[in-house]
Amino acid sequence: MPKSKAKAVKETRVVVKLSGSLFFARDFAEIVGTLRRIVESRKYLRLVLVAGGGKTSREYIEAASKFGADQASLDEIGIHISRANAMVLICALGEVAHSRVPSNLQEVMQALEIPRNRIVVVGGFHPGQSTNAVAALIAEKTRASRFINATDTDAVYTEDPNEHKNAKPLTSVTIKELSEILGRESMRAGGYDLMDPVALKLIERSRTPTLITKCTPKILEDSILFGKSPGTVVSFVY
Amino acid sequence: MPKSKAKAVKETRVVVKLSGSLFFARDFAEIVGTLRRIVESRKYLRLVLVAGGGKTSREYIEAASKFGADQASLDEIGIHISRANAMVLICALGEVAHSRVPSNLQEVMQALEIPRNRIVVVGGFHPGQSTNAVAALIAEKTRASRFINATDTDAVYTEDPNEHKNAKPLTSVTIKELSEILGRESMRAGGYDLMDPVALKLIERSRTPTLITKCTPKILEDSILFGKSPGTVVSFVY
Amino acid sequence: MPKSKAKAVKETRVVVKLSGSLFFARDFAEIVGTLRRIVESRKYLRLVLVAGGGKTSREYIEAASKFGADQASLDEIGIHISRANAMVLICALGEVAHSRVPSNLQEVMQALEIPRNRIVVVGGFHPGQSTNAVAALIAEKTRASRFINATDTDAVYTEDPNEHKNAKPLTSVTIKELSEILGRESMRAGGYDLMDPVALKLIERSRTPTLITKCTPKILEDSILFGKSPGTVVSFVY
Amino acid sequence: MPKSKAKAVKETRVVVKLSGSLFFARDFAEIVGTLRRIVESRKYLRLVLVAGGGKTSREYIEAASKFGADQASLDEIGIHISRANAMVLICALGEVAHSRVPSNLQEVMQALEIPRNRIVVVGGFHPGQSTNAVAALIAEKTRASRFINATDTDAVYTEDPNEHKNAKPLTSVTIKELSEILGRESMRAGGYDLMDPVALKLIERSRTPTLITKCTPKILEDSILFGKSPGTVVSFVY
Amino acid sequence: MPKSKAKAVKETRVVVKLSGSLFFARDFAEIVGTLRRIVESRKYLRLVLVAGGGKTSREYIEAASKFGADQASLDEIGIHISRANAMVLICALGEVAHSRVPSNLQEVMQALEIPRNRIVVVGGFHPGQSTNAVAALIAEKTRASRFINATDTDAVYTEDPNEHKNAKPLTSVTIKELSEILGRESMRAGGYDLMDPVALKLIERSRTPTLITKCTPKILEDSILFGKSPGTVVSFVY
Amino acid sequence: MPKSKAKAVKETRVVVKLSGSLFFARDFAEIVGTLRRIVESRKYLRLVLVAGGGKTSREYIEAASKFGADQASLDEIGIHISRANAMVLICALGEVAHSRVPSNLQEVMQALEIPRNRIVVVGGFHPGQSTNAVAALIAEKTRASRFINATDTDAVYTEDPNEHKNAKPLTSVTIKELSEILGRESMRAGGYDLMDPVALKLIERSRTPTLITKCTPKILEDSILFGKSPGTVVSFVY
Repeated sequence: MPKSKAKAVKETRVVVKLSGSLFFARDFAEIVGTLRRIVESRKYLRLVLVAGGGKTSREYIEAASKFGADQASLDEIGIHISRANAMVLICALGEVAHSRVPSNLQEVMQALEIPRNRIVVVGGFHPGQSTNAVAALIAEKTRASRFINATDTDAVYTEDPNEHKNAKPLTSVTIKELSEILGRESMRAGGYDLMDPVALKLIERSRTPTLITKCTPKILEDSILFGKSPGTVVSFVY
Repeated sequence: MPKSKAKAVKETRVVVKLSGSLFFARDFAEIVGTLRRIVESRKYLRLVLVAGGGKTSREYIEAASKFGADQASLDEIGIHISRANAMVLICALGEVAHSRVPSNLQEVMQALEIPRNRIVVVGGFHPGQSTNAVAALIAEKTRASRFINATDTDAVYTEDPNEHKNAKPLTSVTIKELSEILGRESMRAGGYDLMDPVALKLIERSRTPTLITKCTPKILEDSILFGKSPGTVVSFVY
Repeated sequence: MPKSKAKAVKETRVVVKLSGSLFFARDFAEIVGTLRRIVESRKYLRLVLVAGGGKTSREYIEAASKFGADQASLDEIGIHISRANAMVLICALGEVAHSRVPSNLQEVMQALEIPRNRIVVVGGFHPGQSTNAVAALIAEKTRASRFINATDTDAVYTEDPNEHKNAKPLTSVTIKELSEILGRESMRAGGYDLMDPVALKLIERSRTPTLITKCTPKILEDSILFGKSPGTVVSFVY
Repeated sequence: MPKSKAKAVKETRVVVKLSGSLFFARDFAEIVGTLRRIVESRKYLRLVLVAGGGKTSREYIEAASKFGADQASLDEIGIHISRANAMVLICALGEVAHSRVPSNLQEVMQALEIPRNRIVVVGGFHPGQSTNAVAALIAEKTRASRFINATDTDAVYTEDPNEHKNAKPLTSVTIKELSEILGRESMRAGGYDLMDPVALKLIERSRTPTLITKCTPKILEDSILFGKSPGTVVSFVY
Repeated sequence: MPKSKAKAVKETRVVVKLSGSLFFARDFAEIVGTLRRIVESRKYLRLVLVAGGGKTSREYIEAASKFGADQASLDEIGIHISRANAMVLICALGEVAHSRVPSNLQEVMQALEIPRNRIVVVGGFHPGQSTNAVAALIAEKTRASRFINATDTDAVYTEDPNEHKNAKPLTSVTIKELSEILGRESMRAGGYDLMDPVALKLIERSRTPTLITKCTPKILEDSILFGKSPGTVVSFVY
Repeated sequence: MPKSKAKAVKETRVVVKLSGSLFFARDFAEIVGTLRRIVESRKYLRLVLVAGGGKTSREYIEAASKFGADQASLDEIGIHISRANAMVLICALGEVAHSRVPSNLQEVMQALEIPRNRIVVVGGFHPGQSTNAVAALIAEKTRASRFINATDTDAVYTEDPNEHKNAKPLTSVTIKELSEILGRESMRAGGYDLMDPVALKLIERSRTPTLITKCTPKILEDSILFGKSPGTVVSFVY
């Protein structure tokens, strides 16, 4: 029956968290070109991009911290900057992107219900929630095929590679191991963005396939289309 | 100078998380009476109450889970029920309560800016955030003097007291220890509500003084007014 | 001309009010299955389901009434519960349902403008308006083919069948007669939900074909698809 | 004790529905002056004014009806016009009025929580709800001392005075009698605004003391301050 | 390749500002018929109509001005009336129009993302912004093919034709010349609506092709479909 | 009479536009200290601060422009950044500031209705409106005593002082003269922020006393408290 066949071709959803520093990186235009090409060639692929706060966010938060601001207010600064980043990305993507930055999960779902495969781009949502947690939440709600955390580092290491010479990259890591590696990590606004406990808990409860990898045009394409990456896979085996 | 003196009398804020099961408990009217009395006698005390989802929420979530719903949607069910609980509490408190249930942090701040010391009552805010996390976030943003988690249990135990005969109540526990005790705890919507990793992370980053204690009229009064309780104190010593 | 032909196949809209008690009834899964099958087989049929508050709502409202709450606040409790009910139904329907619960008429229209025939599910809208009135209003605005009030009773009776042995079911009833039968009916929040004066007035002014019938899988299917039911038809002949 | 004494002086709330035709009437400036004087002299009186749609609304609705619009859309036209009327009234009242037109019950409550006795002015809220129903709902939620429907007629008559020579004004009328008198009244958008079934049902359930009277400066003052009027009182004796 | 061909047929957008006086004009029904016919025959044409405030708006603003209201509040009155006008137009257009009046640029974009070529109708957006500026802003954001200001006059004249006998209509005018002609024009709420400095600045920065012309069925059709009109073209040559 | 006396002490409102570059300037902490001191010592003074986008905004807009974005989208980027700037200022001001960034005129009015003289801080509002226009609009709506545009330049010059050696600072300038001086000024998003045509038109229609001056702690204090500055006064004499 043609009907059930038609039903078989369902939309695939992939959520990608992009570092906020990307937007001023040298290969930004090339990455934009890759993303455009991907969605134009794959009619049934739906991309949601989550823009982090990046360097600008960290500078702003640092400026406000000096005056003794509470963490929830610092989160709000980060959210404004991440939305500016998301809007830059929307401008760069042009016609293939949804024209507005949704500000909560409901607005993301609303944007995704428009039957064109336009890329939806968001920044942060609410205080107390990192952009990684936002990405994990969208992946959960949309039952995404995968959540790709495209960062500045090429993988999760056994220890901080900047401080430990012998730190080794991991091809696979359990949620528990990752929690321990991130253990000393604070949750302060604008902090280190490899992954945070809130995002990890959301990934764990929804069991979303998750990749942590470097953000290059080639790696983005492979990880979005085929789920392949030279980075680290989060596994759910206990 | 009288002026600086006037400034010395600043508003004290206390955030209390109440179990959603409270609203149908036998001593609900007595607890309501206690809360009323507290705010009527303390002009500079500002209470924010966070209603959990309770038994109703768990039943609803269980009903929806059978159909294979995603966790974020189950969270939404819990949020609706917790808001109904919050509204019941507002009705019970009458004139001493703010008449609406704020649905996000901004609306809580707005309600608190009204210069009467009315109790502000909320339920859940957003998917991915437990009502404990909501309470911790409000405590952080309002720089609350303390966050009291008034639960069904009388304290945090070394192990689950329902399963381990030798489990012992703790008078004090570090964030790290509490994380470990809660380690096996899932973050599923409507789950066990002693505390969850997201709430713990928020408490940790803002260093809000936190009590986990049983919910009785007497304990509520002592813990709200004096920070004293027979339960468990969360400590920040590492 | 193929063009005008294409135009002839217009979307048919049917609004169904479902009792809030349904969601915990034994045949809930079967009813969900029936609804799914209907929309999957009828591409040009658009269903809007309105969830009532049911037993949970009545218990909550009773709890709050004891403290002397005003009716408008009690209405708000009922609205929160009916939205939780709506969300349970959305979870149960899965892919064939719109993923969010619209909270006013504008949001319903917005959801209906998405060109997929997904079922839109709502709860209550505003204080002072029963879920029956919400259903009647949506039927009016969408120019629905019919409004089916799927209740716990099998029809409108000449008198209350629980109290009068000789009460007889009616196959047809005028708005005026129905008003008189419901005359002693109070409009209190969470009250008897066969129909209320506000809903009746909306049905009258828009002349929406209306059925009051029992909620079983078979009756739902017949009444949605063919407008046939063993219950009562509201007539506009004076 | 001075404290309980202070508590005794509680805010009194009065809700007045004003005909939308008032705003272009000859004595509009005088009525505005009266309202200003009342709130300036009574610190504990809180006025909520509800502006009807009036003649402009009826003309607009008539224009749109010709094209076969549904009643809910016509209601929306009336709501826009009534809000324009409300804004004219806010401009006229100047400093003694709250500067914005609330668009739902929540926003009215929010405006009333600001501790200055500024007059809050609204127009319509939602389709399916007349401005009389809006006034009745606000009276219910705020537990108003009275709801004054200041109309173009001087009282409720036994029959339509325009058509029946022997029609007699009534000093008191029960809800039931008023329902019958209004029985032939349609609920069409922009219709006759003496009172409508929805408003009556809300008055009935909350038992708000209600006056239907002519709108003159003198009558407004007497009815707002003392509840006295030469018009008709709605009674709750059955 | 069929793919790139399909891409070549892109949606064309045209923004038309309609005088608020139109809605009570004799040829309103005829204009509505023309608009309906245009969108039904042109699948890839997307119309956005902006309703001005017209005579009603001017009367309302005049009434409020007498009491010394600030200009921003008078703007709000005009916005309410223009939205009522927009709703009348939506009712008149029926099925070919989007059913709601968007209240800001985001809501317009949202309405336009629905993949049916329904006409989107708006009124004013915010105080400080004329409906001409709203039209220019929408034209800019949607990269419209043209902005047609369909007014009561047949063209821009060298001088005010009502006061100067020798005033001559212009077929083309630069932004600079138009600014000078409009120089003595005040920006008061409800003022002369040929064009205003804010709208001109927006047209200038986005270089939107702009026509100022009389509003007749024939001229509307020619200017919407072919960009031809007997009125004045705004040119960007310096 | 004490009553009319009490009324004589009315709140004075002053709107200050601050350059977005201020927030990373060396004397930022000193300026924050000055603002705090001013509002703590003047109970009846109400300050509204409008944060511009500054250097960050210009960099972001430049990055997005390269991809051919429309001006309205670039405006949105600037709005996000100006709100981040506003939030930094709120964090720095601490207890003397309203805790949230209002996003439109209504929210500003709402924040100002809270009877504490907290400073309200905003960024941009809507596309098509510069932060100068936002400041002028707030000044108009609140009937502010003055609008101070605290910029990077010390006054308005006869010509651009960076390009013309003989440019002379002006102590007073008419709206018309200022329009001409700014004539060559484009309205592009993120452009030169001395003043823009939209802001000028709003100042003109409301005749708000306006100062354009350098932003130093001393000048800010003098201009806010006494309306004195070494910069340029905008005059309304024609």
